[in-house]
Amino acid sequence: MTDFRSDNTCGIHPAVMDAIQKANTGTDSSYGADGYSVELKKRLSDLFEKEVSIWLTNTGTAANSLALSSLVKPFQSVICHQNSHINTDECAAPEFFTSGARLYAVKGENGKMDLSQLQHYLNHTKDLRPHTSIPVCISVTQATECGTVYSLNELQKIAEFAKKNALSIHMDGARFANALTTLQCTPAEMTWKSGVDVLSLGGTKNGAMMAEVIVFFNQNLTTDFDFRHKRAGQLMSKMRFMACQWLALLENNLWINNALQANNRAKKLADIFQKYQFTLPWPVESNAVFVSLPKNIADALIADNIQFYDWHSDISPLYRFVTSCFTTEADLQSLEKSLDRMVISYDGLH
Amino acid sequence: MTDFRSDNTCGIHPAVMDAIQKANTGTDSSYGADGYSVELKKRLSDLFEKEVSIWLTNTGTAANSLALSSLVKPFQSVICHQNSHINTDECAAPEFFTSGARLYAVKGENGKMDLSQLQHYLNHTKDLRPHTSIPVCISVTQATECGTVYSLNELQKIAEFAKKNALSIHMDGARFANALTTLQCTPAEMTWKSGVDVLSLGGTKNGAMMAEVIVFFNQNLTTDFDFRHKRAGQLMSKMRFMACQWLALLENNLWINNALQANNRAKKLADIFQKYQFTLPWPVESNAVFVSLPKNIADALIADNIQFYDWHSDISPLYRFVTSCFTTEADLQSLEKSLDRMVISYDGLH
Amino acid sequence: MTDFRSDNTCGIHPAVMDAIQKANTGTDSSYGADGYSVELKKRLSDLFEKEVSIWLTNTGTAANSLALSSLVKPFQSVICHQNSHINTDECAAPEFFTSGARLYAVKGENGKMDLSQLQHYLNHTKDLRPHTSIPVCISVTQATECGTVYSLNELQKIAEFAKKNALSIHMDGARFANALTTLQCTPAEMTWKSGVDVLSLGGTKNGAMMAEVIVFFNQNLTTDFDFRHKRAGQLMSKMRFMACQWLALLENNLWINNALQANNRAKKLADIFQKYQFTLPWPVESNAVFVSLPKNIADALIADNIQFYDWHSDISPLYRFVTSCFTTEADLQSLEKSLDRMVISYDGLH
Amino acid sequence: MTDFRSDNTCGIHPAVMDAIQKANTGTDSSYGADGYSVELKKRLSDLFEKEVSIWLTNTGTAANSLALSSLVKPFQSVICHQNSHINTDECAAPEFFTSGARLYAVKGENGKMDLSQLQHYLNHTKDLRPHTSIPVCISVTQATECGTVYSLNELQKIAEFAKKNALSIHMDGARFANALTTLQCTPAEMTWKSGVDVLSLGGTKNGAMMAEVIVFFNQNLTTDFDFRHKRAGQLMSKMRFMACQWLALLENNLWINNALQANNRAKKLADIFQKYQFTLPWPVESNAVFVSLPKNIADALIADNIQFYDWHSDISPLYRFVTSCFTTEADLQSLEKSLDRMVISYDGLH
Repeated sequence: MTDFRSDNTCGIHPAVMDAIQKANTGTDSSYGADGYSVELKKRLSDLFEKEVSIWLTNTGTAANSLALSSLVKPFQSVICHQNSHINTDECAAPEFFTSGARLYAVKGENGKMDLSQLQHYLNHTKDLRPHTSIPVCISVTQATECGTVYSLNELQKIAEFAKKNALSIHMDGARFANALTTLQCTPAEMTWKSGVDVLSLGGTKNGAMMAEVIVFFNQNLTTDFDFRHKRAGQLMSKMRFMACQWLALLENNLWINNALQANNRAKKLADIFQKYQFTLPWPVESNAVFVSLPKNIADALIADNIQFYDWHSDISPLYRFVTSCFTTEADLQSLEKSLDRMVISYDGLH
Repeated sequence: MTDFRSDNTCGIHPAVMDAIQKANTGTDSSYGADGYSVELKKRLSDLFEKEVSIWLTNTGTAANSLALSSLVKPFQSVICHQNSHINTDECAAPEFFTSGARLYAVKGENGKMDLSQLQHYLNHTKDLRPHTSIPVCISVTQATECGTVYSLNELQKIAEFAKKNALSIHMDGARFANALTTLQCTPAEMTWKSGVDVLSLGGTKNGAMMAEVIVFFNQNLTTDFDFRHKRAGQLMSKMRFMACQWLALLENNLWINNALQANNRAKKLADIFQKYQFTLPWPVESNAVFVSLPKNIADALIADNIQFYDWHSDISPLYRFVTSCFTTEADLQSLEKSLDRMVISYDGLH
Repeated sequence: MTDFRSDNTCGIHPAVMDAIQKANTGTDSSYGADGYSVELKKRLSDLFEKEVSIWLTNTGTAANSLALSSLVKPFQSVICHQNSHINTDECAAPEFFTSGARLYAVKGENGKMDLSQLQHYLNHTKDLRPHTSIPVCISVTQATECGTVYSLNELQKIAEFAKKNALSIHMDGARFANALTTLQCTPAEMTWKSGVDVLSLGGTKNGAMMAEVIVFFNQNLTTDFDFRHKRAGQLMSKMRFMACQWLALLENNLWINNALQANNRAKKLADIFQKYQFTLPWPVESNAVFVSLPKNIADALIADNIQFYDWHSDISPLYRFVTSCFTTEADLQSLEKSLDRMVISYDGLH
Repeated sequence: MTDFRSDNTCGIHPAVMDAIQKANTGTDSSYGADGYSVELKKRLSDLFEKEVSIWLTNTGTAANSLALSSLVKPFQSVICHQNSHINTDECAAPEFFTSGARLYAVKGENGKMDLSQLQHYLNHTKDLRPHTSIPVCISVTQATECGTVYSLNELQKIAEFAKKNALSIHMDGARFANALTTLQCTPAEMTWKSGVDVLSLGGTKNGAMMAEVIVFFNQNLTTDFDFRHKRAGQLMSKMRFMACQWLALLENNLWINNALQANNRAKKLADIFQKYQFTLPWPVESNAVFVSLPKNIADALIADNIQFYDWHSDISPLYRFVTSCFTTEADLQSLEKSLDRMVISYDGLH
């Protein structure tokens, strides 16, 4: 079985598992007052070159929605890309956690928001006060749901737009490490130096069991956040087992190495598809490869025990292959061999 | 350090840790479609002698509030004991998850609801339709926050009261195993045979890392529950690592043995306190011991590195000591020795 | 001053005012148990040729949002036109009243939803269960925000689509009478015979002081609705003064005559604009006329004390002129005279 | 028929009705931009000797809940008397409008909160951060639901308690005028000079058709309130007909005279009951009289076409008689005659 379905079908990185085991000695204060949680806050402050406040959650959905609830009031709205996870995959969790705030979805190529059409709308909403819900926040997904990565320059432009329009910025970083590796910049540059107020920092897709961190760069937003976190059922009692996962990821740069390996495998995967001249709708800049495959090819791959997701595109058949730090050369070879065989057997593929 | 603060300051039971590690091989379907989750549903159906539907959460707060959201509409209310966890310790999470339903807290000795005063109120609310929020559900905590346990007979009376008044029943079973061990009855008898519709089945306080299960005995309530679970940020991607914890607890009756050990230690703890004639306000029927201590004794214990919680009672100084499956004879001896020394040094204790 | 700003800038129709005064004798039961409210339910049941349940509200926002709250759960969504009032003008009230349900806005010419693109999306959402919010309801605006009217045939197609996809139907009838007059059909044909489950029946824009009625054709939806209505702050104590307004509108077909007069004036308004070859983007089928005017013409009209709204179109300057039962021939003549003068003075208008 | 059921079963005061009619000329800006609304803000600022911000609602439920939503976050709570309208008669509307904040109900004689027990609880909640919902606001009902009135001295003590504990103060003034008349103080003294931040100023029970005003004395709280008001479905289009009602009440001190008349009638009512030595549990300080009547007397009164409410007391049969500005001497005489007859016929009444 070769599994390219998602970077969440894999297990826990051995070093993370090891950390959980090591944390399992004696008793410790519950609800985040443990030593691991305290240490993690320090380590992340160092990493981001800024005093940050952090809260751990068990899912990206909770991280994103809780983060947004600190940025937007129930009668306001959040600008996001129409393909963003908060818009398509979180079952109205943002509305739930924010007590009813609205998402304002915009289009844009390569999974990146096109803000150029937005200025007119924003100006207009001010005239409509209080008849319409006014955007006060932008949520940026880095890396995007299309596997692309906003450049620092692009993030800067969003920051300028946000500043001009008094919008705060949330970053959905479920695949933060994958993007960081691609940009080869510092975590600070990709976040608060690019105007980000709150980050959902994903660990689960990068080798953790489950450990997402809400990272606040703007301390003004955190006054009441411990109440929100508790009220949302996210204040886990044995929090040390959450915090230790991220400590392990940070140790020896494991999180970067994991992302690097996943990204590299994705690039090779893209090469393989391109060798057979399949179309890749978006540049491969992180660990997800989207590819247009004829349905018979897709079916044949499945028959060969290669797993991946049908992306249900409106247009043509589109499939998603995702790599992780667990993806091996052997996985790639399985896919390549399978494709090789088909090209021969189907002869004149397209 | 001797830790009686809570049954959540301890770690993960070795067998549970072992199970997490064993589950960490290869890839598996995410979001609860994995083999462990499927198996757990089967195992719990066997255990409860009934086809159940289950959902896993990372905290008891999420389990309780999500369970309640399936039983009560936003304009209705839930009857609970005034000391219940949902009323005092979950920061209005029930209101959050139910979109605004109200808790109607009642008093009652030994942490158990006294329903005798309630009939008049319930009759009255019907006259007040639609001016007042009408209770449609009772939430029973088993074992209670006072460390006591409802007898099967008491549960039966609640069930009759509920049936007569068309109320559903939720059971907060954060310490379900501790109660079950005390009653020496079957899980079925303590739940659906006693009218319980939904159970929050706690694992975290009984040796798990974090694993609470919402168990539905009434399938009519589950139609949309997967959406609620997802929307609440509780649909974890690597769910196998949640399910495997409970599979380990069920293996070889570990969950019962853990509870039994905790309960036994609590009984001994109570004996120790009674030896010195300290007052225990409530019978010790599970793994929590509440005791009235003179403040100087409490302070001296703390100085002796014995940890426990000040229960902030309105009346007299009250302290809570909780045991777990990790509590050792040595822990008890530390406490006893400490008390011994004080009795001698303080001479004429009270 | 000639006022074409909206059909809500005018006052109360004399017959409605008269009814309020007549209702003002002696005491009556409060909270809708009065004789007028009882009578209104009977009269509307007769009108719609079906036993209906009704609730009165003070605004269309409350009527629409409350109606939707009976059709959609917090984790579900509502399909609507992107120009619909619930989408653009109610400040996330639908999200508020439904506890967080989402609007799924679709495009479509002439302010009417184009459902043809929707089937693929609906099929797809089922695969995404429970990761995405699933539409369970369509909200149709009749007459539309563009001043157009769905034909019975078009409503029938929506009904078929809804039935096929298990969607309920809400109708925003803020200008229900204006549409009904245009279609020259029965209220039953335009509602439940076209699959409508709940109607927001507008009175305010048709001569009432403030009186919107939520009309349920599907009694299964009303079990708890009195609680929702109360909880939303809409259970007015002196309800007779709300009900009597609609009784007056129904008396002698006043509501239809009011709508007819407004619609006729709008048609004449359209004729005037077309005489000068201004572009009307949408057919004039109710009491709103949208027209593209050069900005200098618009400014000159304003200078002539003619009031109307700038519609802030993305494309070209677009203005809205609305008529009501209070709009007079003199109003139309003022406009025409004003335009006449400009055409002469500006010479070569475009 | 003699109606003592409530001060909301009566009609509209002639002067208010007259004002509505006079406002019904020509067109005016909608949504509160009309001249009447602007004038009302000015008049109320004069009345309260302070620049106030105001919003009109159609019910007291909406006024109270909306006001609270500006004072309390979803995870916080509001202290109120257990008999307060928000606690017993508004069907969880406060929870709805505040997105889930909790009411913390306290007891107290004569319908007035006894804050003496509260300090311990408030201190304690701070230790429980973030596990429990923390009170940040007190809601005071003036006049109370028991027909009593807080003295200025009592209000001052609440203000001191609030200040000491960083609590804001909301006043439910559904019967504000009745209380004001009793205290014979200025509106300023009974509100912001007594620490009140927001007032729900009732007009409906004092002669209006429906017109409650949310009055903000603290401008910091109003930044976003127009959005809340709109989102709650309370931004009525023909707002002038709401504002003109309160302008009429203020004209020639009508609101005070109305309250005075109601209060005086209530006093006489109390005298009548006391003449027959019936027990009045609470002092009669506004326009509500509560009286313990033997059930046969109550039944006989009803048979005599005298209407009033059974108060469903837990203890003994308790009935509520409410007067309004419409209550006449003849109404009182009917009651007295009826009682006279009974005393003779039943002979040896108790």
